[in-house]
Amino acid sequence: MYRRTVDITRKGAIRLVFKGASHTADVFFDGIPAGHHYNAYTPFALVIPDVEPGTHEVAVIVDNSFGESSALHVPNDYYTYGGLIRPAAIELLQELFIERIAFTPIRTAEGWQGTIRLYIRNIGRRARRARLQLSLADRDIAAGEASVMPGETVELSITEPFPGITPWSASDPTLYLLKANLYMEGQEAPVDDLIERVGFRTVSTENGRIQVNGEDIVLKGFNRHEDHALAGAAIPYPLMVHDIELMLDMGANSVRTSHYPNDERFLDLCDERGLFVWEENHARGLSLEQMKHPLFAKQCEDCNREMVETHYNHPSIIIWAILNECASDTPEGRAIYRSQLEQIRAMDSSRPLSFASHHRERELCFDLADIVSFNLYPLWYGDEDPLELVKEARRWADEAGGLGKPMIMSEFGADGYYGYRDPSRVKGTEERHAEIIERNLEAYTSVPFLSGMLIWQFSDCKVTEGTGWLLTRAGTQNSKGIVDRYRRPKLAYAVVKKYFVGQLRSEQE
Amino acid sequence: MYRRTVDITRKGAIRLVFKGASHTADVFFDGIPAGHHYNAYTPFALVIPDVEPGTHEVAVIVDNSFGESSALHVPNDYYTYGGLIRPAAIELLQELFIERIAFTPIRTAEGWQGTIRLYIRNIGRRARRARLQLSLADRDIAAGEASVMPGETVELSITEPFPGITPWSASDPTLYLLKANLYMEGQEAPVDDLIERVGFRTVSTENGRIQVNGEDIVLKGFNRHEDHALAGAAIPYPLMVHDIELMLDMGANSVRTSHYPNDERFLDLCDERGLFVWEENHARGLSLEQMKHPLFAKQCEDCNREMVETHYNHPSIIIWAILNECASDTPEGRAIYRSQLEQIRAMDSSRPLSFASHHRERELCFDLADIVSFNLYPLWYGDEDPLELVKEARRWADEAGGLGKPMIMSEFGADGYYGYRDPSRVKGTEERHAEIIERNLEAYTSVPFLSGMLIWQFSDCKVTEGTGWLLTRAGTQNSKGIVDRYRRPKLAYAVVKKYFVGQLRSEQE
Amino acid sequence: MYRRTVDITRKGAIRLVFKGASHTADVFFDGIPAGHHYNAYTPFALVIPDVEPGTHEVAVIVDNSFGESSALHVPNDYYTYGGLIRPAAIELLQELFIERIAFTPIRTAEGWQGTIRLYIRNIGRRARRARLQLSLADRDIAAGEASVMPGETVELSITEPFPGITPWSASDPTLYLLKANLYMEGQEAPVDDLIERVGFRTVSTENGRIQVNGEDIVLKGFNRHEDHALAGAAIPYPLMVHDIELMLDMGANSVRTSHYPNDERFLDLCDERGLFVWEENHARGLSLEQMKHPLFAKQCEDCNREMVETHYNHPSIIIWAILNECASDTPEGRAIYRSQLEQIRAMDSSRPLSFASHHRERELCFDLADIVSFNLYPLWYGDEDPLELVKEARRWADEAGGLGKPMIMSEFGADGYYGYRDPSRVKGTEERHAEIIERNLEAYTSVPFLSGMLIWQFSDCKVTEGTGWLLTRAGTQNSKGIVDRYRRPKLAYAVVKKYFVGQLRSEQE
Amino acid sequence: MYRRTVDITRKGAIRLVFKGASHTADVFFDGIPAGHHYNAYTPFALVIPDVEPGTHEVAVIVDNSFGESSALHVPNDYYTYGGLIRPAAIELLQELFIERIAFTPIRTAEGWQGTIRLYIRNIGRRARRARLQLSLADRDIAAGEASVMPGETVELSITEPFPGITPWSASDPTLYLLKANLYMEGQEAPVDDLIERVGFRTVSTENGRIQVNGEDIVLKGFNRHEDHALAGAAIPYPLMVHDIELMLDMGANSVRTSHYPNDERFLDLCDERGLFVWEENHARGLSLEQMKHPLFAKQCEDCNREMVETHYNHPSIIIWAILNECASDTPEGRAIYRSQLEQIRAMDSSRPLSFASHHRERELCFDLADIVSFNLYPLWYGDEDPLELVKEARRWADEAGGLGKPMIMSEFGADGYYGYRDPSRVKGTEERHAEIIERNLEAYTSVPFLSGMLIWQFSDCKVTEGTGWLLTRAGTQNSKGIVDRYRRPKLAYAVVKKYFVGQLRSEQE
Repeated sequence: MYRRTVDITRKGAIRLVFKGASHTADVFFDGIPAGHHYNAYTPFALVIPDVEPGTHEVAVIVDNSFGESSALHVPNDYYTYGGLIRPAAIELLQELFIERIAFTPIRTAEGWQGTIRLYIRNIGRRARRARLQLSLADRDIAAGEASVMPGETVELSITEPFPGITPWSASDPTLYLLKANLYMEGQEAPVDDLIERVGFRTVSTENGRIQVNGEDIVLKGFNRHEDHALAGAAIPYPLMVHDIELMLDMGANSVRTSHYPNDERFLDLCDERGLFVWEENHARGLSLEQMKHPLFAKQCEDCNREMVETHYNHPSIIIWAILNECASDTPEGRAIYRSQLEQIRAMDSSRPLSFASHHRERELCFDLADIVSFNLYPLWYGDEDPLELVKEARRWADEAGGLGKPMIMSEFGADGYYGYRDPSRVKGTEERHAEIIERNLEAYTSVPFLSGMLIWQFSDCKVTEGTGWLLTRAGTQNSKGIVDRYRRPKLAYAVVKKYFVGQLRSEQE
Repeated sequence: MYRRTVDITRKGAIRLVFKGASHTADVFFDGIPAGHHYNAYTPFALVIPDVEPGTHEVAVIVDNSFGESSALHVPNDYYTYGGLIRPAAIELLQELFIERIAFTPIRTAEGWQGTIRLYIRNIGRRARRARLQLSLADRDIAAGEASVMPGETVELSITEPFPGITPWSASDPTLYLLKANLYMEGQEAPVDDLIERVGFRTVSTENGRIQVNGEDIVLKGFNRHEDHALAGAAIPYPLMVHDIELMLDMGANSVRTSHYPNDERFLDLCDERGLFVWEENHARGLSLEQMKHPLFAKQCEDCNREMVETHYNHPSIIIWAILNECASDTPEGRAIYRSQLEQIRAMDSSRPLSFASHHRERELCFDLADIVSFNLYPLWYGDEDPLELVKEARRWADEAGGLGKPMIMSEFGADGYYGYRDPSRVKGTEERHAEIIERNLEAYTSVPFLSGMLIWQFSDCKVTEGTGWLLTRAGTQNSKGIVDRYRRPKLAYAVVKKYFVGQLRSEQE
Repeated sequence: MYRRTVDITRKGAIRLVFKGASHTADVFFDGIPAGHHYNAYTPFALVIPDVEPGTHEVAVIVDNSFGESSALHVPNDYYTYGGLIRPAAIELLQELFIERIAFTPIRTAEGWQGTIRLYIRNIGRRARRARLQLSLADRDIAAGEASVMPGETVELSITEPFPGITPWSASDPTLYLLKANLYMEGQEAPVDDLIERVGFRTVSTENGRIQVNGEDIVLKGFNRHEDHALAGAAIPYPLMVHDIELMLDMGANSVRTSHYPNDERFLDLCDERGLFVWEENHARGLSLEQMKHPLFAKQCEDCNREMVETHYNHPSIIIWAILNECASDTPEGRAIYRSQLEQIRAMDSSRPLSFASHHRERELCFDLADIVSFNLYPLWYGDEDPLELVKEARRWADEAGGLGKPMIMSEFGADGYYGYRDPSRVKGTEERHAEIIERNLEAYTSVPFLSGMLIWQFSDCKVTEGTGWLLTRAGTQNSKGIVDRYRRPKLAYAVVKKYFVGQLRSEQE
Repeated sequence: MYRRTVDITRKGAIRLVFKGASHTADVFFDGIPAGHHYNAYTPFALVIPDVEPGTHEVAVIVDNSFGESSALHVPNDYYTYGGLIRPAAIELLQELFIERIAFTPIRTAEGWQGTIRLYIRNIGRRARRARLQLSLADRDIAAGEASVMPGETVELSITEPFPGITPWSASDPTLYLLKANLYMEGQEAPVDDLIERVGFRTVSTENGRIQVNGEDIVLKGFNRHEDHALAGAAIPYPLMVHDIELMLDMGANSVRTSHYPNDERFLDLCDERGLFVWEENHARGLSLEQMKHPLFAKQCEDCNREMVETHYNHPSIIIWAILNECASDTPEGRAIYRSQLEQIRAMDSSRPLSFASHHRERELCFDLADIVSFNLYPLWYGDEDPLELVKEARRWADEAGGLGKPMIMSEFGADGYYGYRDPSRVKGTEERHAEIIERNLEAYTSVPFLSGMLIWQFSDCKVTEGTGWLLTRAGTQNSKGIVDRYRRPKLAYAVVKKYFVGQLRSEQE
C-alpha cells in the first residue's frame, strides 16, 4: 500500500494519473474507493470531483499476486515486480479539460498534412462551450468550438497541411510540439492546456516489405523486457538512456516492447533517437485454456485500448501487435486474434499489425495480420540450421495466408550465462551464445525476404520462480540477453555489432 | 585410437589389463583383434598367448558415441568422456596364474576369521599342479593344492581364524596385505604372485538399521560423479585425494559411486580413510522401454559381475546397488530388478543390497532389497517440506515391502551456480542452494528412522549437451554440487559441515 | 560541452543553478561568457540580468582534465567523472529575491527555538524595500523588513521559540517546512519565495563524547564515494535510495561524504531517514608540496564556503570536516588546517569540526579540531592488532592535543574482490575481507572511548588509472567496499550487519 | 614431517632420491640424521650404507618458512609451497653404481657424434674394477673400464659417431634411449644400470641470432611458474600435459622455467613435444644487499651445479640462465654474475648463457652473457610504446657490451583478472590485458633483431601474502597469466594464438 497526503489549495476536481501500477491497483481518496485498474503496463487516470481545500490522502493498494482475477498475469518467463513501477501525477482540473489528443500524419503528393483529434471532457454540472486553440510547427490553428454536456466527452477533429516540416525518420528523428489551449466561454485565461510531441512519418506494407515514409526498412533490433538488476521494472530514466545507448552502439534500429506496452519515457527516448518500436499488448504464451478465462477478453480489450490511446502519438511506434505465442493455431484462438486485431485496426488504421507466432506450419492467423512474424530458436531449442529454417518459415507463411506480406524473425536466441566461458563451447557458455547469435544473424541478413530480425533479448531478465519448465531458466532468469541484468556485455555483443553496424569496427570496441 | 609399442623380452603369454575404457573398447595386438569390451566403468583383461620376444603393438579403439549397441550408455545427466579414463597395465604370465582372490571376513563369537577364495587359471597346453602359499596379518598359510586343466580356472577356498587382528572401521580403517604365491610343480620359484589389501569388517541390517561390525551406523555423505573440470573422468590421483579431503573436511563418512562402479584407486582411498562406499552398477533413469533394449540384460549382467569380482576385497564397500531411478514401478521392471539382485547376492552374500528409487508410493521392489532408498528433491523439483516428505517416504516404504528395513535418503539437493549470489535468494543462487541443503539436513538428522543421507551431489558435473529436459541443466552441467567442477566450495559447504561434523566449528572454516 | 535552448517568456533576470559540474565549468549565455566555477562537488549559481523574451542558449563547457589550474583535483583514489553530474535549474527572478535561508535550531531549558537568517538580494537598478513573511511548524512569522540597495545582499535575522515541535533524531527524523515569501513595496503578490526543510536538533561534544540533543551517540557507518558502476558520479535518485536502504539494512546510523560535499538529494535522504552525516570539503591525500599550489587556499576557501552555505540546513549533517589525510603533520600544514577550521567555524558554530588523519603519533593538529579522527588500516596495510592499535591511537590523541575530545575511527578496511572466494583466505578474498572487517569492528565496539567507526568503504569505487601506487588498486578500483560497484553484497555485509545491528538476525538475512 | 616405513629385503646400501623438497629438507633414516638440503627446485640424493634387512623408517622434515638460513627463498612474487613437491624414490645399491651420465651431441661436417661421460661411484670398502657397456640408437658400445677407490667417483668418457640418427628439433623431437650397464669384476650380472633419454641437437649464437642445428630460431613462448590452483607446486603429471597442450595450442615454441629449475617430468614433456626451454637457477629480484647474504654464494653454486648436472641430458634445454632481475647494475653484482656464469660454462660449454635484466641502460653485465635479455613491461608499469622501447633496448644492449649478441624480450605483460571485463577497458580488465599483449607482440614480431619473446606469464600464480609492494598483487596473485590459476583462458589467449601461430584461425577457436 502506498499512502501520501496532498495539499489542495482550492476547491475543485483533481485527476490522479498512474502510469503503471503492477499488477492491479485499488485507489482510495480520503479512504474512499476511487477506482480500480488491472494491468501493470497501461496508464490510467481517475477524476475526483469537488475536492475541498486542505490536506487529503491518496492511497493505492497494489497487488502482484497471481489469482483468479487475472487472465494475463500468470507465472511466466519474466518477473511481474509489484508496486507503482512508473510515475504518478496529480492534476488540478476545472470543469472542462482536454482528455487527450491524437495526431495522425498524412503524406500526400502535395506535402505533409496532419489530422488532429481532440477529446474534451466536461466534469462539471452544466453544459459548457469549449474553444480550442492549437499550435504546431510554428503555425497557430483555431481548432474549432463545441458544446460539451456534463459527464460527456466531445471529439473535435481537424486536418491541416504542414508545408515545410521535416519528416521524422530513424536517421533524423525530428519532433514537433503540438500545443493545445482550451478556453471556456466567459473566461479569458485557458482552463486547460496539453502539449504533445509528434512527428511526421507514415508506415505502410507493400510488395512484401515495410515502408517508413515510402522507403523500405529492415528492422534490426531487440526484444526488451523492462527489467533491471538494480531497479526491477521501475527503471530510472538515466538507465533507460543507458539501454538506448547500448542498443544504438550495437547498430540496432528497432526494439520490440515484449510482452506489454512500455513506459512512455522509454517511448519518448525512442522518438528522440529514431528507434523503431514494435509495441504489443500484454500476453505471453497463453494456452487456449488460459485464453478461455472469463476475464481474458475484457482484460485484453482494456489493454489494447489503453495502449493505443495513450501511445498513439509516438512516431517511433510503427507496429502494433498482440498475443505473443498464444493459441493462434486453433479455431477458437483464431476468433480471438481476429477480434483483437479488428479492435486495434478500428482505433488506428495508420500502423500495420502483427503478432509473434511459434506455431510454424500449424499457424492459422497469418491472413489476419499485415506482417507475419516468427519466434524460432534454431540451434537452441532444436538443432535446425537457421538458414534452412528461415526459408522454410517463409514457405509456411506463404502457404498459410502470409503470401505477399512482410516477414519478421521476431525472436531467436540462446542462453549465455555472463562470465561462464569455456573452450568446450558447450551450451550456456558465452562462446556458444555468441556463435548461435552469429549463425542466426548470418542467415537472416543473407536472405532477401526478411523485413526484420529481433534478437531475444536485449538484457537478461528475472522470471517467476517455480518448478517444471521454469527450471530451464537457470538462476530464475531468462539468460538470453546480449547484456546481463546489470547491462554487462556478453561476448555476443561484438557479434551483434558486427552484423548490425555492417562492419567490424574493432578499433572502437 | 590409442597405439603403443611394447618390448617383450621373453616368449610367453601376456595379459593386458584395462581399468576403464570409455565406452566401448576394441583391442588389437599386432593389428589382430584381441578383445572387445562394453562399459566405461568396469575393468577387463585379455590374455595373449605365445607372444614372441620383440616389439609388439597394442592398439585400442575406444568409442563413446551413442548408438544401438549400447543399452546403458545414453544421453544422460552426466557426461561420458571418451578414451582410456583409467590406467592400463601389462603382465607377463607363465602357464599358471592367479586370476583373482576374494577375501571374506567373518566375525564370530570367538573372534575374526577370514575365508579366502583363490582362482587359478591355466593358460598353457598341459594340465598343471598348482600350490598356493599365503600370508596375511603375519601368518603364513598353506592354502592347498589343485590340478588345473588347460584353459580352465580352479577355485581354492580356505577359512582361517585371525586372532588379534584389528578390525577395519571408519574411525580406524586398519588394512592388511594378503599375499599369495603360486607355485607350479617342478619349479622352485613362484610362477605368479598377487597382493590384495583387505580389512576385517562385517555389514548387516537388523532392526531397521545398518550395522558395521555390529554397531549401527548412519551414512552422511555424498553422491559423486567421476568428473573434473580439468580432467574429465580421468581424475589424477592427487585430485582424487583432494576430493576425499574435502568430503572428510565436511564431516562425511560415506560416498555413493553414482551411477557406475568407480576407479579402484578411489576405492583404495576410501579403504584407507574409512569412508563407507555404496557402489552401484551402471544405469541411470532408464525407462521401461530402454530396459527392453535387447542388450540390456547382458550388459547389466556383465557390469554387475565385473563390479563385484574386481571390487570384492574393498572393506569400504558396504552396499551394492543397481539401476538408479529405473522402471522399478512396473511389473516388467520388477522382474529385472529381482534378477539382478539375485545375481549379485549369489556372488556376494556378505553385503546388503539396495537401489535408489524416485517412484514414491508407486515403487514395487522394496521387498527385493535389503535397504530402501529414496531419491527425492523437496524444495527443488517441488515445494514439499523435507520433514513431512521423509516421514511420508517411510510410510510408503513400510506399506510397500520395506517394513523393518533400513532406509536411506539416497539423493536430495538443489542447483546452486558457483558465484551466483543475490540477496533475493532466488532459485539457483548459492544462498538458496545452501538454504535448501540446510532444510533437508535439518529434517533428516532429526528423524530416528533414517540410516543415511547422501547429498546430490559432491561436485558439479558436466552433462550431455542437448535439448528438452537437458535444458534444465544450465551450462551443460548438473549444478547441484556442494563444490563446483573446479572443487571451489559453494556457500552450502559450511552448511554441510555444520550438520555432518555435528557442530559449527567456525574457527576452522 | 552541453548546449540547450530555453524559452524565456518575459523580460527580466534569470538565475542559472548548477548543482555539480565536474570539474571546472565555463558557462555561456547566448555565446557570451557568463561565469566560471571550480570544483565538481559544490553548487553554484549565476544571475543573467535583463534577458529579453525569446529563445536563448545556455552552454556549459565542463572539463575534468588534470592540470595546473587545479589544486584539489588530481589523480587520486577515486575517479573524477566529467560532466554535469548533478541537476541544473533555471529560475526567473524579479528585482528582489531570496538568496538563501539559514536555520539554526537552539535547545534551551524552556524549549526549542530557532534562529532564521535570510539573505535578500537586489539585482535591480533601484533601492527596494523588502518584507518577509515566514511560516514554520504551523506558525506564521513576520520576519521584518529591510531596504536593499542595488547589487547588494541584506541579511535579516530573527529568533523565535517553537514550542511543541518534535525534535529531529535518528530514530524519529522529524522535518519541518520553512516557507518564506518575499514582498516588495508596491506589489501585492510575493516577488519570490523559498521553501527550506529543517529539523530541530543540536550537536555538542562534551566529556569526550558527541551528543545529539544532549544524548551521547556513537557513529556506526560508512565512508561513501559518489560512484556507481552504471552511472558514475551522476547517481540516479532511485539508486541513491537503494544505497541508503543498504546502509540502513546493515544497521548503520551514519555516513561520511568522503572526500567532498555530496549531492543535496542524498543529504535530503539522510535528513529523512535519520542518518548522521560527516560532510567534508574536497581534498584527499595532498602532500605539503601539493598544498603549496598557488590556487590551493582559494579553491579550498571557496569549497568550504559553498559547502557550508548550501548545506547548512540539513539536520543530518553533524560534523564538518576538512582535508582528508593531508599534511597536518607539518608546521606549514598546521597553519592551513587552522585557517580552514577557523573559516568554517566562523560560518557555523553549531557543528563540531574534525579532519581525518593518518599521521598517527606525528599528527600536529588535534588541538585545532573538536573531534579527533584516525584513518588506520590494521590487518591490511600492516599487521597490527586492531584492539591494540585503537588503544594506542587514543594515547597518541591524548598526548597531542586531543585529550578529552571525542575520537572516531574515520577509516579502516581491506580489499575484497567481489566473487573472489577461496578457502585459503588470502588477502583479497571475500573471506579475508570479512574477517578483517570483523576483527576491526570487534575491537572498536569493545572499547569505551570511541564515538564512531566509519568503514572504508560502502561501495567499491573506480580510481584514476595509472602506475606507481595506483597499481595497488587492482582493476582500477578501490575494492574495499562492503558492496561492489553494482551494489552486490560481499561476504562482509553480514559481518557488518552483525556488529551494527547488534545481534545476528539470521532469519532475515 | 613426512614419515614412511620401507621394507628392505637384503643387506646393503640404499639411495634415497628427492626430486624436490620445498624449501629445506632434513632427512632421517631410522631416526638418525642422514642429510640436509637447501632449495626446493633441485633434486638431491643420499646414500645410506649397510642397511640391515627389515623394516626401516625414512623421515623428512621439510620447512618453507623464511629465515636467516635462506638467501634465495624470500617473500616474493610467487608462492613457495611447502612439502615434498616432486617425487621421491628409493634405490637398492651394490658396491658400485652409476651416479650419472652426461651426453653431449656434436654436429660435424661428417655427421653426428656424441660424447658420453659416465660417473661411477664406489660406496664399498674395497677398490673395485668397473666395466661399462652402453647402447644408443641401436649401437652397442663398450665404454671402457676403470678402477674405483672406496668413496670415490670416477669419470669415464667416450666419443662416438652416430651416423644415420635423426636430430632432435622442435618440429621433429626425436629422442633416443641411452642405456648403460655397469659390471663389477667377478660378477656376471650387471651391478647397476641407468637409462637416459637423449637427443641430438646443437645450440649456437652467431650473427646476433640463436641457432639450433645451425638454423636460426626465434623463441615465442611463456614464462611459467610451477603453480596450480588445485595442486600448488606439486602439479600432477596430467595437468603438466595440459599446460603443454595449452602452450602448443597457442603456437608457442618455448618456455622459460622462471625462476628456478623445473620438475624433470615437465622437462621430459618439453623434450617429447619439441618445446625449447630456457632454464634458470633460483633467484628473483634480489637486491645487492640480499646478494651479500653470507649463504648466497654457496646456495647459488649448489643450485647451479645441481641444475646443470641433473638436467644436462634434456635436449629441449637450450639456454642456461641465472639471477633474474638481481643487482647486475652494480660492480659487486657484476662480480657475482661473472662468477656464476663461469661456473656454469665450466660445467657445460654446449649451451649459451643469459640472464634477464630490468636495468635498462644501467645494466653492467651484458658482455658476460651469450644472449642479452630484457624484462620490460611497456603499457603496464609505464606508458612507453613497446616498439619504441624494444628499439631503445637494442641500443642499450649494443652500447653496453651486447653488440652482436642475440636479444630476447624475456618478460613483458600486464594484469588481467579472469572474469573482469568492462567496456571501459581500464587496467586490469581482460580487454586491456589482451590489448597490451597485442601491442607488445605486434612490436616484437615486427622488428628483425629479436631472437625471442617470452610472455609474462603462462598462468596466474599465487604470491607471498604481505604488505608494501605485494599489495600490487591483488588477491595475493600475480595475475598476468594468459590463463588463470585454473587454466581458464583469458581474452588474451586468442591474441597470443594469432601472433604465435602466425595467422588468425578463427574457425578453430
